[in-house]
This record gives sequence, C-alpha cells and structure tokens, in this order.
Amino acid sequence: MRYSAAALAERFGLTVHGPADTEVGGVGTLAAATADQLAFLSNPRYRPQLADTRAGIVVLREGDAAAHSGTALIARDPYVAYARIAALFEARAAAPAGIHPSAVVDTSAQIDPTASIGPHVSIGARSVVGAGATIGAGCVIGEDCIVGDGSRLVARVTLVARVRLGKRVTLHPGAVLGADGFGLAMDDGHWINVPQLGGVVIGDDCDIGANTTIDRGALDDTVIEEDVRLDNLIQIGHNVRIGAHTAVAGCVGIAGSTRIGRYCLLAGKVGVAGHLEICDKVVVHAMTMVSASITEPGEYSAGIPAQPTREWRKNAVRIRQLDSLARRITALGKGEE
Amino acid sequence: MRYSAAALAERFGLTVHGPADTEVGGVGTLAAATADQLAFLSNPRYRPQLADTRAGIVVLREGDAAAHSGTALIARDPYVAYARIAALFEARAAAPAGIHPSAVVDTSAQIDPTASIGPHVSIGARSVVGAGATIGAGCVIGEDCIVGDGSRLVARVTLVARVRLGKRVTLHPGAVLGADGFGLAMDDGHWINVPQLGGVVIGDDCDIGANTTIDRGALDDTVIEEDVRLDNLIQIGHNVRIGAHTAVAGCVGIAGSTRIGRYCLLAGKVGVAGHLEICDKVVVHAMTMVSASITEPGEYSAGIPAQPTREWRKNAVRIRQLDSLARRITALGKGEE
Amino acid sequence: MRYSAAALAERFGLTVHGPADTEVGGVGTLAAATADQLAFLSNPRYRPQLADTRAGIVVLREGDAAAHSGTALIARDPYVAYARIAALFEARAAAPAGIHPSAVVDTSAQIDPTASIGPHVSIGARSVVGAGATIGAGCVIGEDCIVGDGSRLVARVTLVARVRLGKRVTLHPGAVLGADGFGLAMDDGHWINVPQLGGVVIGDDCDIGANTTIDRGALDDTVIEEDVRLDNLIQIGHNVRIGAHTAVAGCVGIAGSTRIGRYCLLAGKVGVAGHLEICDKVVVHAMTMVSASITEPGEYSAGIPAQPTREWRKNAVRIRQLDSLARRITALGKGEE
Repeated sequence: MRYSAAALAERFGLTVHGPADTEVGGVGTLAAATADQLAFLSNPRYRPQLADTRAGIVVLREGDAAAHSGTALIARDPYVAYARIAALFEARAAAPAGIHPSAVVDTSAQIDPTASIGPHVSIGARSVVGAGATIGAGCVIGEDCIVGDGSRLVARVTLVARVRLGKRVTLHPGAVLGADGFGLAMDDGHWINVPQLGGVVIGDDCDIGANTTIDRGALDDTVIEEDVRLDNLIQIGHNVRIGAHTAVAGCVGIAGSTRIGRYCLLAGKVGVAGHLEICDKVVVHAMTMVSASITEPGEYSAGIPAQPTREWRKNAVRIRQLDSLARRITALGKGEE
Repeated sequence: MRYSAAALAERFGLTVHGPADTEVGGVGTLAAATADQLAFLSNPRYRPQLADTRAGIVVLREGDAAAHSGTALIARDPYVAYARIAALFEARAAAPAGIHPSAVVDTSAQIDPTASIGPHVSIGARSVVGAGATIGAGCVIGEDCIVGDGSRLVARVTLVARVRLGKRVTLHPGAVLGADGFGLAMDDGHWINVPQLGGVVIGDDCDIGANTTIDRGALDDTVIEEDVRLDNLIQIGHNVRIGAHTAVAGCVGIAGSTRIGRYCLLAGKVGVAGHLEICDKVVVHAMTMVSASITEPGEYSAGIPAQPTREWRKNAVRIRQLDSLARRITALGKGEE
Repeated sequence: MRYSAAALAERFGLTVHGPADTEVGGVGTLAAATADQLAFLSNPRYRPQLADTRAGIVVLREGDAAAHSGTALIARDPYVAYARIAALFEARAAAPAGIHPSAVVDTSAQIDPTASIGPHVSIGARSVVGAGATIGAGCVIGEDCIVGDGSRLVARVTLVARVRLGKRVTLHPGAVLGADGFGLAMDDGHWINVPQLGGVVIGDDCDIGANTTIDRGALDDTVIEEDVRLDNLIQIGHNVRIGAHTAVAGCVGIAGSTRIGRYCLLAGKVGVAGHLEICDKVVVHAMTMVSASITEPGEYSAGIPAQPTREWRKNAVRIRQLDSLARRITALGKGEE
C-alpha cells in the first residue's frame, strides 16, 4: 500500500504543495516519521517540529504551508484529513464469514451468512446477528438481542438480554450491555429487586469502550442515540438517554434516568446524578460532579487542581470552616458600616 | 399471564379500590402504561401523571386513591408492592440442569445435578456448585470455590480462588471475585508481592454488579455480609468487610481493610480510604472522599456541584489560597478590636 | 511444609531471638495466628497486639524484640521479610504445559512447548507465547501479540492487538490491553475515528489488576515500564508512559499522552489529565485531580474529607461564592488602610 500526494489529494479533496509524486507507505508523528511516512500538523504547539520533520508528506493548514519545504497536503482540518488517510494504512484482517465450530448458537437465533461468529461465542434464543457483523472470540449474547449490520463486538463482550444494536456499532472487550439496572426497594429490613424489564438500544455508529457497562431499563429502555462515543470503564445506569454525537471520556458515571443532550462532551471521571436533564452542547470538565440539571449550553466544572499536600491540608481544613468564615466577613463588613 | 386486581390484592395483601375484576398482562410507567398494564405511583413528583394515566391498575398509597378514578391497589409502600407484582411478569427462561458439553470441569469439582453449567465454563479443582445454581456462559471458577444453592453467575464472571458464595447470590457479567489483593512491599528499589492467602466470602442474597472487582484477603478473608447490593464497576480491596443490607452505587472504591457497617448507603463514585471503620446506617453522598472513620450514623458529603467554568476557575484559584484568606480575616478581626 | 526459625533465618538472612527450633506451618495475623503460625509486626499501631499474640514466631524489628517473649526473627524491614516467608506457604498448582484441546490457536502463532494454554483460550495470527507462560481460561489474545517468558494471564484477559508483554508479567482477570485509544475527530457534525496504529508495551515484572484497561497508542506505543504495579479498574489512555517501579491504586484514570515518572505512587481514584509530565518520585493522594504537569518530587493532594451533609451543604454554597468573598476581604482590608 503506497500512495502519492497527488492520489491522496484527489481521493480526499486536498491541495498539494510541492512535489505531487512523493509517495508514502505509512503514517507517523511529525517528530518520528520517516521519508516514507505521512505526518500531520494540527495542534499549534507542535509547529516547531515542522522545520525538522523528515516526513515525506505533511498534512497541514494553508497558513502553515510556507513553513514547510517538502510535500504538503493542505486541509481545512488537518486532523480530520489525517484520520481519513491513516485509515488506508489500518490493516485489519477481515474476520471470516461463518460460525466457528466452537461457538454455541441457539437454534432460534438468526445469523446472517455474511456475519462472522468467533471461537467460544454463545448466542441465545431469538437473537439476530446482521449482515457483515463480527462477533469476536468469547462474546456472550443472551436472549432477544439484535446486532445490526456491520457491527463489531471485538472480543469478550456481553449483551445480557434485550439489547438492540444499530448498524456499524463497535463494542470493545469487556463491555457489558443489558445487565440488570440497580433497582432496589427496602422491604422490612431486606432489599428486594425491582424487576428490570426494559432493554438497551444503541444507535448506529456508536463506539463503546472496554469494560464499560450500560444497564438495561426498568420499564422503558436505556437509549444511546447514534454516533455516541463512550470511552473505557464508564457506567451508564438504567433508563439513561444519551443524545446523538455526544462523547464521554473514561471513568464517567451517569446515574439512572438522566438524559444527556446531543453534542455534549463529558471529560474523564465526571459523575452525573440520576433523574437530571442536561441540554445539548454542554461540556463538563474532568472530575466534576453534576448534581442538578443543566439548561444552558456551555462549559461546567468543579474539579480542584492538585496542590502540594503540605499547603493543601491547610486549605482543606478551611473549606470545612467556610460558612463560618463567610459569616465573619459579613460581620466585619457590618462593623465598618 | 394475566392477573386481576382482586387476585393481586389477595396475593400481596393489598386493598382494591374500584373494579376488582380489572385484569392486566404486564407493567408500565404511569405515563406510558396501556389499559392492559399495571403502573405505580410512589414518588410524589409523578403525582400529576395520575390524572392522565391509561394504566388498567395503579398501585398507590391510600392518600392518593381519591385522585384516581380507575382501579387502584392500595399499598403502604407502592414501590415495594410494584416490585413484587412486576416479578410475576419477569420471564426468565430457566437454565437447563446439567453441564454443557463445551464446559471444562475438573474431576475433583462437585456439581449438583440440578445446577446448570453453561457453554465455555471452566471449573477448577475442589470447587463446589450447589443445587439449582446457574453458571452462565463463559464463567471461570478457579480452585477451592463454593457457589451456594440457587446462586446465579450471569455470564463471564470470574471466581479466581477461595471464593465462597452464599445462597441466592447473583453475580453480573464481568465481575471478578478473588483476584490478588494489592499487597506490595518495596525491597531495595523493587516491588515484591505480599502473598494473598485469604479468600472472599459473600453472604446469602447478595447482588454484585457488572465488572465489579472484589479482591481476596491477604491473611483473613474479604467479607461481604448477607443482602448487600453492589452496583457496577466497584472496587473492593482486600480484607474489606461490608455489613449486611448495605447498598453501594456504581464506581465506588473501598480500599483495603476498611469495615463498612450494616444498612449503609454509599452513593456513586464515593471513595473510602483503607483501614477505616464506618458505623451502621451511614449515608455517604456522591463523589465524597471518606478519609477518616465515621462513628455516628447520618449523612456525609464532600462533593462540589458543577458551576459554569468561567466562574469556577476564579473560585478554584481561591480554594488554593483559602488558608491565607482565613488568616487575613482573622487579622482584620483583630485590627478592629 | 514446615520451617524452623533457624531455617527461615538462614534462608532470608534474619537473626533469631529465643528458641531457634520453633517450627511453623503457615502464617497469620498477630491477632489470630496460632502457635503453628508465623506473624509479623511492621505497623507500630499493631504493637499492642504483640503481648497477647499466640504466634509461634514473630518477625519484627530489633527494637521490638524485647517486648516479645517467644521466638522472634529480627528483620530490618519486617513486612518485606514476612512477604518472602509467606511466599513459601503460597501453594499454587502449576498449570500443566501444553494447549488445552478447547483452545483455538492460529496456525501462525508460536507457543513455547513449556507454556500452558488453558480452556477456551483464543490466540490470533503471529502471536507468540514464551517459555513457562500461563494463559488462563477464557483469555483472548489477538494478532501480533507477545507474551514474555514466565508471564501469567490469570483468566479472561484480553490482549487485543500489538501488545507485547515482558517477562514475569501478571495480568489479572478482565484486564483489557490494546483496545483502540479514544481518538476522535469531529467532521461535519459526525465523529470519525482516528486510526489507532500503535501498540502496548509492558515491561518485565509488571502486575496489572482486574478489569484494568490500557489502550494502544495512536502512532507510537503506550508504554508501561518494568516493575509497575497497577491495581483494579484503572484506565490508561493511549500513548501514556508510566515509569519503572511506579504503583497505581484502584480506580485511577490517566488520560492520553501523559508521562508518569519512576517511583511514583498514585492513590485511589486519582485522575490525571492528558498531555502532562509528572516527574519521578511524585506521590498523589486519593481522589486528587492532576491537571497540570508536576516538576518537583513530593506529595500532592486535592481531596476534601467528608463532613456531615448538613454542615457540608453550607460550605459547598460558599465555595461557589469564594472569589467574591475573597474580593470582599480585599475591600475590607483596603478600607482599614
């Protein structure tokens, strides 16, 4: 697989600066790419590396082109252009169509003949796997699940029950979708489980990270709309709804029945309480607790940056005295008046 | 499966208001239930939906009965009554007794003939699976484990070694019980592992969530008493003890050797340091750090609610100056005296 | 397996106080050990237990020897000495060499004849398993992975692709190494994936906890240097580098491209933002957010200890007013001048 700058420009609608017949056989970082590789410049902090790069081709913005003496591909968004080009070099062996002999598939399940069912997979009653879907090694699909066309369960994914995936959904290893929601009622000193009768619905083109968990709904479904991106180790409670094109970073937890809007970004380790509504286009910064609904788009935070422990300890003591400190300020203010 | 209001009232000790021969074939929310479904009203914020519900039967408190014109079942705790009724409609195919031909069971393991061992399960030496227990697809049970009667490992659960489950315990997919505790000693610039020779003991009727991890003890056991509920993605360190009837929400971490009391509630993303004692009936609110023992029942918090980032940044700077601000207040106060 | 104090002293370079022929057949805590067991005293808070212990042998420091009437082994670091002695009593059945008949191994994979491949394991194209390595039940190894000599994948571990493990690495159940990094670019209202073409490199003697996830790099590799210890449920983003001998406690998240130094300690639930540099010998206390690089060794914190909710609520309100409170203090100060 080798591509010339001219060929890449034509394929992705870019403009060439410099020799258009330069060819590359792979991609690399500005700092480490060889003459046989393509690199990109998107984040301005890496601009100083442009002078020294040995990359055969660099994807960059019009404004950076003058600073580069070799072959460049001009893009409105170099990161997007790079992502598309890099995909040409992403070799992934196509999984073979058919059912591996070690897989255990219920007789009532429907498996498209173009789907690939890997080793040690189990598929339960009435579940359906669509055309071109890949079920990797060790996945467990329970009853009444649907895997849409072209979806891929990388390996060791569990769909417990009543999980319906759209098309081109990717689930990374260890993800668990459709486990019982955490529904409890205290009855005479003991917990009883509230039956979790809903399912999970995942829209087209979603990508769900390793060891992330999405519980099924109590009555209605838990819903992840199309093109949502969830990173690793995220917990999504029952009956949550996440709007299309929202991205959620690792270690986030969203409690039951909360609705997150479209085009939101939740940074790492954010926690969102249950039964809230977060509107579209909300950005929540890392380690922030969201305990009330958010009705205005914008950025929200509550994380405290680390401080040397010796200083922090003094401040942490004062946080717990803050209300009385504030009252003293008020008293002092009144004393002056 | 259809039930009349009269039949449900008799079965669960409830009182009927309105036509007692109304029948339902399922359950739903107040907002979405059809005439063939039963709904419930427990949380007062949903009371306005009562007027418009089309539910055939509504479970509610005595005081709400007058506001409902159709058939009602009066319950002291409508949520508990609903949970019991909904369980009638929770169809779960009984797993077939016996050992799936793809399972690999050590010859020294004892499997009750009424237990169900699913596809691709491994069971190690000297482990015991009790009557009516279900070991779902892809579970791995190591050596010297016990699965009590009626317990259910949904799928892809791991019991590493020396894990003893009581009766009617449910473990959701991806849960890992009995991995090595995190016991390290620094020896001349390298870590050495401190052998983790204890086990894990889980009491009757516990429910442990997807991808939750419970390490085995260093010398004594890690112990979860009866009727404890753990949600998803929780980390329980070695030698922790959690008292009966305590419930722990998602993404909580409890460090080694800490003891949590009975009837405690830990909300999402709480962190509890090691070697602490938390007494009975403590509620810890979301994202709170517990770094000292708690000896009084009650509610505890430390989470900061999200603020618009523009405002938060100014406040976060001040938190790191808080001790000096407090000293200035004191100085100002003295100046006035 | 029984050992006399004299034999242990010789084997581990310790000094005996009291009868050197005392024998033990196991280990226990100071509080619970029997006369047939060895205990240790390292943490001074357990010193009061020394008077009452029934342990046959106690490992302790020179300075504590006078307080113990029975047989003692004197060690410079009793915890390290205990760890070494306890390992004598850690019976772990050696996994049998060879490939279990239920495993599915690609014909191009190379499995050392002394390695043990357990039940329901899958191994992909071009992967290599070294001498004496153990691949436990239900593990999935994708393409182009290397498992170094003597490494152990306990059970249900996934190496997705291009993961190279050093020697004597231990991976606990549910760990996922080499999943796609979370690389996204927004293109005309939809996310596109940025191909993740790098791998994961794990140094010798690392230990990685249950359900921990380590993503593979975008272009370069994600690197964990030798003798790093990661606890359970940790998320390591793509292109992170963690220096040798660093230990990370449970529920920590480290975002992409951050570099952590050598001999660092990250306590439970710490979050580290992306693209940072943390120097060697940094200790970060529990639940702290690290959002800027750290260039000085030392201890860092930002966690707020729990308070009764009634008091906390008043303080939390004031945190959000902190900047205006600080301005009032300044105004009051100026008023006095």
